[in-house]
Amino acid sequence: MGVSLDHARELDRQDPLAGFKPHFALPEGVLYLDGNSLGAQPVSAREAVAGTLDQWRDELIKGWNQGWFDAPERLGNLLAPVIGAGQGEVVVTDNITLNIFKLLGYITGQRTDGRRVVLSEGGNFPTDGYIAQGFCRFGDFEHRFLPEGAELADHLDGVAVVVLSQVNYRTGRLRDMAAITRQVHERGAEVIWDLAHSAGALPVDLNACGARYAVGCTYKYLNGGPGAPAFLYAHRDHQGGGWQPLSGWHGHAAPFAFEDDYAPAGDITRFRTGTHSALIYSALEASLTMWADVDMAALREKSLAMTELFRDCLADLLLVHGIEDITPAAGERGSQVSLVDTENGFAIVQALIARGVIGDYREPGLMRFGFTPLYLSFEDVWQAARHFREMLESGEYREPRFHVRSAVT
Amino acid sequence: MGVSLDHARELDRQDPLAGFKPHFALPEGVLYLDGNSLGAQPVSAREAVAGTLDQWRDELIKGWNQGWFDAPERLGNLLAPVIGAGQGEVVVTDNITLNIFKLLGYITGQRTDGRRVVLSEGGNFPTDGYIAQGFCRFGDFEHRFLPEGAELADHLDGVAVVVLSQVNYRTGRLRDMAAITRQVHERGAEVIWDLAHSAGALPVDLNACGARYAVGCTYKYLNGGPGAPAFLYAHRDHQGGGWQPLSGWHGHAAPFAFEDDYAPAGDITRFRTGTHSALIYSALEASLTMWADVDMAALREKSLAMTELFRDCLADLLLVHGIEDITPAAGERGSQVSLVDTENGFAIVQALIARGVIGDYREPGLMRFGFTPLYLSFEDVWQAARHFREMLESGEYREPRFHVRSAVT
Repeated sequence: MGVSLDHARELDRQDPLAGFKPHFALPEGVLYLDGNSLGAQPVSAREAVAGTLDQWRDELIKGWNQGWFDAPERLGNLLAPVIGAGQGEVVVTDNITLNIFKLLGYITGQRTDGRRVVLSEGGNFPTDGYIAQGFCRFGDFEHRFLPEGAELADHLDGVAVVVLSQVNYRTGRLRDMAAITRQVHERGAEVIWDLAHSAGALPVDLNACGARYAVGCTYKYLNGGPGAPAFLYAHRDHQGGGWQPLSGWHGHAAPFAFEDDYAPAGDITRFRTGTHSALIYSALEASLTMWADVDMAALREKSLAMTELFRDCLADLLLVHGIEDITPAAGERGSQVSLVDTENGFAIVQALIARGVIGDYREPGLMRFGFTPLYLSFEDVWQAARHFREMLESGEYREPRFHVRSAVT
Repeated sequence: MGVSLDHARELDRQDPLAGFKPHFALPEGVLYLDGNSLGAQPVSAREAVAGTLDQWRDELIKGWNQGWFDAPERLGNLLAPVIGAGQGEVVVTDNITLNIFKLLGYITGQRTDGRRVVLSEGGNFPTDGYIAQGFCRFGDFEHRFLPEGAELADHLDGVAVVVLSQVNYRTGRLRDMAAITRQVHERGAEVIWDLAHSAGALPVDLNACGARYAVGCTYKYLNGGPGAPAFLYAHRDHQGGGWQPLSGWHGHAAPFAFEDDYAPAGDITRFRTGTHSALIYSALEASLTMWADVDMAALREKSLAMTELFRDCLADLLLVHGIEDITPAAGERGSQVSLVDTENGFAIVQALIARGVIGDYREPGLMRFGFTPLYLSFEDVWQAARHFREMLESGEYREPRFHVRSAVT
């Protein structure tokens, strides 16, 4: 294996984050390397949801005055330190698609220079590109793709807004947020950062990077539950301008005045739309409360150590089996390992799942393994690598059952 | 009281819907006349949410292939019969604000006659007007208000789309959906019906009325839980045109192909946006499953009988105390009683709440009482009226504590 089980256990003994694992409800016999798709369940989330069900039953409509109504801002403030934002700069609401649309409308509505190009990334997870296309088609803007691997600087002419992922969901490559933000601003454009694969995966510092706008989801590394609401960040100096187009009553300056005319709230609240679900906010709040105790530097250190351990355990084997390791170098990496085998990748992931090692497969040939420092131990990583080795060496991935395709999220 | 308790009890004995009440978890000592704001909790909702929490914990990412992903269409099909829609014509997704925006973009994007006016109702719940204003501002359309009480026919010149509530949230007045739909179509416009206060309150027959587009919420009479997702209806003959502007990956024709270019699904799925919460869908599904057994004609009969009973119990008293009953006649009524007392309305509602009779107050002077046939008995209605009488006759609403204002949803 290259690395001994004893070594992995020693790393666990030294792990300052080891205390978080018991706070997650993990199924028996599963080694979960897919927290970058859907995070595991915090034990406290269950209790929180039960509490909100009690509240619905017993308090009925009064619940809206007992914490439900202001949950988007309260949870935004809980999340803010995890992404380097200040209090009042983050609201938890809707999904990433909708939050990007709001920001595109908000930003372009304030421009007076006539720029009408919105740039999004080709070859990335399509959410950002799809909504940028819908926005441009409806608002009579021009949408362009930044080709995968292209130099951003070569594509910024005439651009009003660019939407960029901080961490690429396929390769796990981490962008230099500070440098790119500066570059985009210098070229007279704005950037919306998509933190779907970075929030909770590594230290993000929106304020220090000069970032003005960002979105992200809470159901991956932030463990908010399946389809938990997304978040939207707007720097405090950029909250006062114009409308965002999805003007709902919860984003009104005086929602309970029930005036006919819309007037946006003066702060981050303007990015809310209509009535949100109290139930899902309570699950997410339980998870976000836990994040207040997480040392983000220790999280990053463990994340890099886990991804390195996994690769060290497998390096010789991957070489023999012709599997390419495209994981970026430590400084340019999110919290995932990305391997490519165009011939057997799909079957390998299925064979691993049959062994209880949950990873993710994306065409063509991409195997993604996410490493979540809060609920994975180094021994988990070592055992996952051991399964990988046994599965490859036994050739069990060649069994026909591992080659049957079905919809995979 | 005008009506005896024995009479109310006799009505309960004859009530074909009496069997539904035990399926709701209602707090002790509460007479809940605010189901038109937030519906009560079905007993089965709790179990359903617990099941989805188990699924998140045990199945993790696999849950998306075990009913989570297609919940918007599955629940839409469960809901369809309640609103007179066919299978494949309803999707449960996002909130009303967002669903109206999608339909406005979808409808106007298909018009070729240059009409650019969107009409919404003044004096109604502001959701529809707020998003119509945001839509028009962003898309360079013209927004106009239909003044309260005005003739629709006088305001349809040049109108592309009008957004109308089937039941007014203040007065409870029910519009003639068939006649108005015909009228609007004859004038070359489209109408989006807002069913927030009619779906689950009375028989709605979208198909029979010739309605092409509608939206509504599920947390009032449909009992889906606080902030449960909204629904969107598009007639089967009107699902094939153009894009809706909030183009997310769940509305793509092939969401798992992860193509760069957006292409809308050919059916109702095109109105989905991004990832939704499995947790809230399960609570709503439990409730919607119950609706399959509801006889909508019996529901309407009971609704009218309950609102009449409440009014009969109070008629003489309201007269004495100068409280105006603005509840429309039976054929023109939703499922609520609306009373006006501009001097004491607020305090009266507070004094009733203190007695466990939950109603709703809106400026100026409007007291709204919603009657939900599935979990209210005639005796409940009689007892609520008795409290109303005692509270008025004792003058206890004059106590200073009932005059303190705070935010009310």
